[in-house]
Amino acid sequence: MSNQLPVLNSCCTPISEAALGPEQAAEGAAVFKALSDPIRLRLMSIIASAGDEVCVCDITPHFEVSGPTISHHLKVLREAGLVDCERRGTWVYYWPLPERLTWLSTLLSVPAAV
Amino acid sequence: MSNQLPVLNSCCTPISEAALGPEQAAEGAAVFKALSDPIRLRLMSIIASAGDEVCVCDITPHFEVSGPTISHHLKVLREAGLVDCERRGTWVYYWPLPERLTWLSTLLSVPAAV
Repeated sequence: MSNQLPVLNSCCTPISEAALGPEQAAEGAAVFKALSDPIRLRLMSIIASAGDEVCVCDITPHFEVSGPTISHHLKVLREAGLVDCERRGTWVYYWPLPERLTWLSTLLSVPAAV
Repeated sequence: MSNQLPVLNSCCTPISEAALGPEQAAEGAAVFKALSDPIRLRLMSIIASAGDEVCVCDITPHFEVSGPTISHHLKVLREAGLVDCERRGTWVYYWPLPERLTWLSTLLSVPAAV
């Protein structure tokens, strides 16, 4: 997907261990921005917890906003490298990209004994 | 700090295990919004990695923006429950609140074997 952010190189150094440079911070902030909207964070959680790919037709009933609004938010998640999708016939199917979630989780992790 | 977001209750269920409800998603998105700005994410990483409290006088030289701009961004991080601070004399000192970082890290964690 050419619009997606690249996989980040600095994947394994938590911010509790080293400060980010300006470029790394810009990349990370862009991904957090994708999760900074309540609808998008819920969408991400629905797709991440499904255990399989999810048809957009099964996602929209969870929300009181229009289908095009949902599609817009899903596009933002996809461009942030958090999900990917494939169209099959009428519907589009989404699945999570766990590498990106793991990257974010590691970035924010704190040693257990602080 | 009365302006801070409350400590979130649903601290230990990753989105890879269960979908968020609307209220949880709104709370989580508000914290991600605080990290969605490159300057704020860098500020957070400087404070989190310092290993001790950090004087704002040691933070501002890292940035090419004005002191008031840095202060505004630090206030956003504080209101999101990510850092806390104390004024002593001329300067304000900041330290990270690891509980909030751990909450976010857990929220985004993915089982190792997917």
